[in-house]
Amino acid sequence: MISAGVVGATGYTGVELLRLLAVHPGVEPVLVTSRGEAGRRVDALFPNLRGHVDLEFVMPEPARLAECDVVFFATPNGTAMQMVPELLAAGGRVIDLAADFRLRDVNEWARWYGLEHACPELAAEAVYGLPEINREAIRGARLVANPGCYPTAVSLGFLPLLEREAVDPGSLIADAKSGVSGAGRKAQVGTLFSETHDSLKAYGVPGHRHLPEILQTLSTAGGPDVRLVFVPHLTPMIRGIHATLYARLTRELDLQELYETRYAGEPFVDILPEGAHPDTRSVRGSNTCRMAVHRPPNSDLVVVLSTIDNLVKGAAGQAVQNMNLMFDLREESGLTAPALLP
Amino acid sequence: MISAGVVGATGYTGVELLRLLAVHPGVEPVLVTSRGEAGRRVDALFPNLRGHVDLEFVMPEPARLAECDVVFFATPNGTAMQMVPELLAAGGRVIDLAADFRLRDVNEWARWYGLEHACPELAAEAVYGLPEINREAIRGARLVANPGCYPTAVSLGFLPLLEREAVDPGSLIADAKSGVSGAGRKAQVGTLFSETHDSLKAYGVPGHRHLPEILQTLSTAGGPDVRLVFVPHLTPMIRGIHATLYARLTRELDLQELYETRYAGEPFVDILPEGAHPDTRSVRGSNTCRMAVHRPPNSDLVVVLSTIDNLVKGAAGQAVQNMNLMFDLREESGLTAPALLP
Amino acid sequence: MISAGVVGATGYTGVELLRLLAVHPGVEPVLVTSRGEAGRRVDALFPNLRGHVDLEFVMPEPARLAECDVVFFATPNGTAMQMVPELLAAGGRVIDLAADFRLRDVNEWARWYGLEHACPELAAEAVYGLPEINREAIRGARLVANPGCYPTAVSLGFLPLLEREAVDPGSLIADAKSGVSGAGRKAQVGTLFSETHDSLKAYGVPGHRHLPEILQTLSTAGGPDVRLVFVPHLTPMIRGIHATLYARLTRELDLQELYETRYAGEPFVDILPEGAHPDTRSVRGSNTCRMAVHRPPNSDLVVVLSTIDNLVKGAAGQAVQNMNLMFDLREESGLTAPALLP
Amino acid sequence: MISAGVVGATGYTGVELLRLLAVHPGVEPVLVTSRGEAGRRVDALFPNLRGHVDLEFVMPEPARLAECDVVFFATPNGTAMQMVPELLAAGGRVIDLAADFRLRDVNEWARWYGLEHACPELAAEAVYGLPEINREAIRGARLVANPGCYPTAVSLGFLPLLEREAVDPGSLIADAKSGVSGAGRKAQVGTLFSETHDSLKAYGVPGHRHLPEILQTLSTAGGPDVRLVFVPHLTPMIRGIHATLYARLTRELDLQELYETRYAGEPFVDILPEGAHPDTRSVRGSNTCRMAVHRPPNSDLVVVLSTIDNLVKGAAGQAVQNMNLMFDLREESGLTAPALLP
Repeated sequence: MISAGVVGATGYTGVELLRLLAVHPGVEPVLVTSRGEAGRRVDALFPNLRGHVDLEFVMPEPARLAECDVVFFATPNGTAMQMVPELLAAGGRVIDLAADFRLRDVNEWARWYGLEHACPELAAEAVYGLPEINREAIRGARLVANPGCYPTAVSLGFLPLLEREAVDPGSLIADAKSGVSGAGRKAQVGTLFSETHDSLKAYGVPGHRHLPEILQTLSTAGGPDVRLVFVPHLTPMIRGIHATLYARLTRELDLQELYETRYAGEPFVDILPEGAHPDTRSVRGSNTCRMAVHRPPNSDLVVVLSTIDNLVKGAAGQAVQNMNLMFDLREESGLTAPALLP
Repeated sequence: MISAGVVGATGYTGVELLRLLAVHPGVEPVLVTSRGEAGRRVDALFPNLRGHVDLEFVMPEPARLAECDVVFFATPNGTAMQMVPELLAAGGRVIDLAADFRLRDVNEWARWYGLEHACPELAAEAVYGLPEINREAIRGARLVANPGCYPTAVSLGFLPLLEREAVDPGSLIADAKSGVSGAGRKAQVGTLFSETHDSLKAYGVPGHRHLPEILQTLSTAGGPDVRLVFVPHLTPMIRGIHATLYARLTRELDLQELYETRYAGEPFVDILPEGAHPDTRSVRGSNTCRMAVHRPPNSDLVVVLSTIDNLVKGAAGQAVQNMNLMFDLREESGLTAPALLP
Repeated sequence: MISAGVVGATGYTGVELLRLLAVHPGVEPVLVTSRGEAGRRVDALFPNLRGHVDLEFVMPEPARLAECDVVFFATPNGTAMQMVPELLAAGGRVIDLAADFRLRDVNEWARWYGLEHACPELAAEAVYGLPEINREAIRGARLVANPGCYPTAVSLGFLPLLEREAVDPGSLIADAKSGVSGAGRKAQVGTLFSETHDSLKAYGVPGHRHLPEILQTLSTAGGPDVRLVFVPHLTPMIRGIHATLYARLTRELDLQELYETRYAGEPFVDILPEGAHPDTRSVRGSNTCRMAVHRPPNSDLVVVLSTIDNLVKGAAGQAVQNMNLMFDLREESGLTAPALLP
Repeated sequence: MISAGVVGATGYTGVELLRLLAVHPGVEPVLVTSRGEAGRRVDALFPNLRGHVDLEFVMPEPARLAECDVVFFATPNGTAMQMVPELLAAGGRVIDLAADFRLRDVNEWARWYGLEHACPELAAEAVYGLPEINREAIRGARLVANPGCYPTAVSLGFLPLLEREAVDPGSLIADAKSGVSGAGRKAQVGTLFSETHDSLKAYGVPGHRHLPEILQTLSTAGGPDVRLVFVPHLTPMIRGIHATLYARLTRELDLQELYETRYAGEPFVDILPEGAHPDTRSVRGSNTCRMAVHRPPNSDLVVVLSTIDNLVKGAAGQAVQNMNLMFDLREESGLTAPALLP
């Protein structure tokens, strides 16, 4: 049985990780930390875990964390990079659900996150935890940078087209819609119920932190000419991302076959039949990325509809998938429950 | 491996049952029927089941159903009673998620459901599938009448008080709030999104079909003097029932201790600590009934807050719990996943 | 044209008041204050007011406020009582939408609001602004204490029964359901979208600040024996209160006729026909309290269903109604738009 | 006082029209028809209209409709074209909120709506009721084809760019998000609360009826080379359209100035300051189209964010605006209330 520590488990990715670990047959959460909630039972904060997680929050002590086989960071950006070097030095393995190790270019990182990076050499070493492109590297990694939610949905959607050079890499548009849980569990006016319910808006059109992360991933397939217009939207649902992707085709090919072939062996990417439209509820609570690919009439564009649960395939579920790979467990282990519909 | 048939699986209790059976280690759905959808893949209608249920809807043929170890009816009221006699005669075992066998008094049944009962003798034989009061009878039953959603939340909340004669049985009030999925998946104006979203209303104050069902259950503990005012409300959420229960105490006792003791051994009833308030999301997707008990100031009333997921403990999950009992499986089998929060 | 000042207009009651004043033919907002937003255009914070309110937030200066014909306080509890004495001394008239002047008993006030009251003599002078019981007093008032949202819905629902001594005053129960906007526009975790959406819970069962306010009002009609169990619930909608009220009848009378007669002349109380159930959307954005009265079967209880928009009849709309009375305008002035449905 | 008839007023555009007419100072609804609800009071179906509309639904009789100064059709597609010829012949004036007269090309109409057009000559005569491009023609029109909701939001967003030849007309993309009320008030499974709440999906990517309507409008400014990819999405809100529009700029220009100048005199188009993002709630219940225009980084695309309330500027409000023009009333008459926020 693998022992797991979770640092900063009072947010939504934290509680979701605990929900998934609670049913995982090969891992056990043994240490859950929070500076603010230390001493309180985890299930007092999250009653859905009553009977499932019998732990109290404790202060994050490196020595105790170092005894865990794996440590997940579900902390705000900038925290993990302060603690990870010590954990790795002690022989630990780490999966960071925040953004600290997602960008190889630490100057770019500093520009978007407003902090000097604390350990550039680890940013270089970290493996970007998108199994669909980095499976083998993840298996051997000490440090996995778990992808962002938007980057997961957008990258998985565009990759087949770029890998096969089927589209103009300078023509990419990602019109992405996210549920409100993506903004986290912190006290702020902008994500109050009465500010976001029954309404919808775009945000961050002039620039969003996930843009450089997506570009880094897409460039591995599409080369240096990849350009992307990324428009995120805040939508009145708790979970779910629906990325509507547009690109200009440079040649004719069987798009349905392209996507089905590319993801044929992937346990967590599901290509719908031709003509279908995925809805986000069909992945609610599950680790699946569900997609459909369309050719709209009278146009040279391809339209890809890519849906995930931002807290699962976009965060905690993908982290478990990465852990499974790192520890030679079955990749689907703990991630087999169907989505909750309705 | 137990083989299961599901009759009428195009509604919400049907798809929920399939979601639960898909992860159950001891049972396999082998036959899923629908007159309207025969020939269509189940996962074409419910894409969350892609990769989990590899079946097509078929026409409901008694001969094929009779080959199943257990048959679930997730049909509209009045359907099961036409088919169940033949299935039982062939040696099958049945769990009816509709209301056909819930009332022992078939005249009362006819009055509320507008139909003559087709098999009164089976209405008399059927075991009411609330394990917290009928566990042993369920184990041996051929035919289980799975309780309604409101009756489950209300009955579990009032039973400890009535069993211990702590309240005036004539003083009961159940102010119950339900999500919209309780109204089913049928085309009707009243449950359209734009009719129910961001709004709330009471309904059925002059009379609701679940009232005689609740009274029948409560009378087993509270005797013939039980009277109940039942006011259901339609609230803008998909899943969840929150029953707020009021009764007049006839003597002083430790209410917290009463509830904790009564449900100490129950795997699916969870009593919160004193002073707490359960929210319905803490049981979303799980088979738990989560409760708290309160003594409001300057009053001789007790207030019980009882929450369930209407599609799980209020329908499909309780059906699986009953099946586990009937087939000597572990009672929690297939029902161990924590609720989805947020 | 009456000139109005609004103190603390960055919350939901504030913006709602400005929305209503913007279309009022007899009053003009001339001064809108906020310490936190001073210098910013009001319509930059609330874009729905673009083209309707051409003002900037300013710091709250008593001298400038004293020049207004009427000053509304839409501030947190405890603020108005610091400023009102000076305004009244300068000849101003005040409507306080917070709770500072709602309780005559300042010791009781101090107990619930955790503050010493700054001006007990004004708490004694203030007129409780529920026009349906205090219309004449409001006309002549210098200082009106605008009722809370729950107290408005609950009091209007119970008053006819108590005034006619038709129920046991010791038997009252108010099971109230509120939208989330009632909790205000402040940064806090508990009212985040992802904490409240698609879920429902009771809160404050051991005690809620609105309880003494309701009791004070009901006692004027029901005498010292009035006892009330008050259970508020947080429900996933922005606006709306649905109070479900229970009381034990002490004699038979025509309830429908009682309610219709009691509120026959009231412009903002609407009694539905017998057997109906109001939904909160039917009052969304309007100043109406819409009610229905029921006799459930086999019971000596009466059930009243009372709905309001908590931001309108429960706050800003009632404040405008009070202002209309104070300044001899038509009572309906500025309050004639139908509710927004759907 | 202008007398108005409303044909088919049991849907959402119908009730919204009645809500607006109820406060309009220059018009009075005198006749409201419905085959299905004839004999029932309008406010029994729509309780928000109690005290505002004192009428019963009647059968649609041409003779009585012909006595109205103006007749609105809020009927399903294909109904108005059967009745309009007779009304016009009798000297009436008509505003059709359905699609019957929106397309000049009746073959195209027949292809998308599956019906032979009943009066092609009136399809040719009808004025497309988008005041921002057809104000003068509307004033003199006998028959106005009120635009669809998507076409209003998309056309107003693209027109300034096309009129000034600032973008490649072959590069247009409209990623549009709509509330569920756009699908109407009819019994169907797809728009049930439990099918659409807390979820989001694209639909109609292979083709949508609003595409030819939008193209017809955009071609008047952009010429025959206009091509548009239109991807509508169903989102969990009642009202609101957010169209996110993309086009490739062919030259540099001051986009903010372009939009502000183009719509400077328009009472119902509001351009937000640079860098802003409109949310749909800021137009909820109002006739405003609120927009912002953006230049995303490292791209030659322009992004326009265009929001309306689909039932107001996208339907009933625009119909009232058209009526105001046709009858020489002030264009804003009856349409001056701010949006309901929150």
